[in-house]
Amino acid sequence: MAPRQKHRQPVIETAVRLFRQQGYSATGLNDLVFEAGAPKGSIYHYFPEGKASIAVAAVEEAGRRVAETVAAIAARTGSTRELLIEHARLLGGWMAKSGFRDGCPITTVILELAPQERLIAEAGRKAYAARQSVLERKLMEDGFRRPKAAELAILCMSALQGSLVQARVETSRKPIDATAKQLGDLIEAARGSLVRA
Amino acid sequence: MAPRQKHRQPVIETAVRLFRQQGYSATGLNDLVFEAGAPKGSIYHYFPEGKASIAVAAVEEAGRRVAETVAAIAARTGSTRELLIEHARLLGGWMAKSGFRDGCPITTVILELAPQERLIAEAGRKAYAARQSVLERKLMEDGFRRPKAAELAILCMSALQGSLVQARVETSRKPIDATAKQLGDLIEAARGSLVRA
Repeated sequence: MAPRQKHRQPVIETAVRLFRQQGYSATGLNDLVFEAGAPKGSIYHYFPEGKASIAVAAVEEAGRRVAETVAAIAARTGSTRELLIEHARLLGGWMAKSGFRDGCPITTVILELAPQERLIAEAGRKAYAARQSVLERKLMEDGFRRPKAAELAILCMSALQGSLVQARVETSRKPIDATAKQLGDLIEAARGSLVRA
Repeated sequence: MAPRQKHRQPVIETAVRLFRQQGYSATGLNDLVFEAGAPKGSIYHYFPEGKASIAVAAVEEAGRRVAETVAAIAARTGSTRELLIEHARLLGGWMAKSGFRDGCPITTVILELAPQERLIAEAGRKAYAARQSVLERKLMEDGFRRPKAAELAILCMSALQGSLVQARVETSRKPIDATAKQLGDLIEAARGSLVRA
């Protein structure tokens, strides 16, 4: 990495963490610079639009991580049901470890800024598309055909995303586990009737 | 209403609207006072803790509205599937009308402040519990027994909540409609096998 780029990644990683815990608006540029250990004057060198460009980079980075995580789980599980339950187990564990402060690193920023901030919405769209295609493939391995698999993938994403919000107010992983278990069971039953059909 | 209380409700309604569009942190106390037409000095009379107490009142108000909406839909629909699809139709219509800026009036505030702000988390918990009990009753009318109905209700809430986030980045109601349709169909199929069992 060129030395002039050395503070870029720490700033992005700090942004992912702080945005996830408290959102975009509550996170000051100074917090990002300070916690990332970057020289104060350097920030507009790395991110010419300031906080807005950091947010775009953070959504891209977080989207990449989520898609990688889901792809890794998909590779080691035998069905969408297993994938959902395993992903819920991971998410619930991370949330519990943070005292239920860490949720999805993308959701809060999107709710604060999209669709008004076009680049944020675009980064969010790409992050969701990457995740959706992993789920869609897994559902097709389950035996669902493409248009159905695509819509079920949207449902799977919605469900896990929403369950993280409930987990925060309940300070409990139960909503995440219940959501994944129930959805997994419903999909497995529908798959069973495909096989019988 | 006592005259000294006359600005309380307009401030809460303004807060519900602005928090839904841009979140808590981006909404200044001055915006709330100005847009609600309340005298600037009056705000700490109505809300001694300032913005934090407005947020609690806004989450309570929004929770009441959502629970009322879901109860009204439940009363006029014949199954959980119909309820989900009808709720999605309403939510999608509202979101489209606002250019996909209006989402759930509770989610953003919760993601920004819970669980750190105990009173916000508590208000969120109550809002979700009210909504969950309406869904749970409908699922029991469908034929599911209590523990299963309770967990399916959590899934239904998670799914619609999450679909609103996707709708914002897609600036499309499709994720909401697809989520409700697929989940409704899965629940209807599971209900069918209960009846056959």
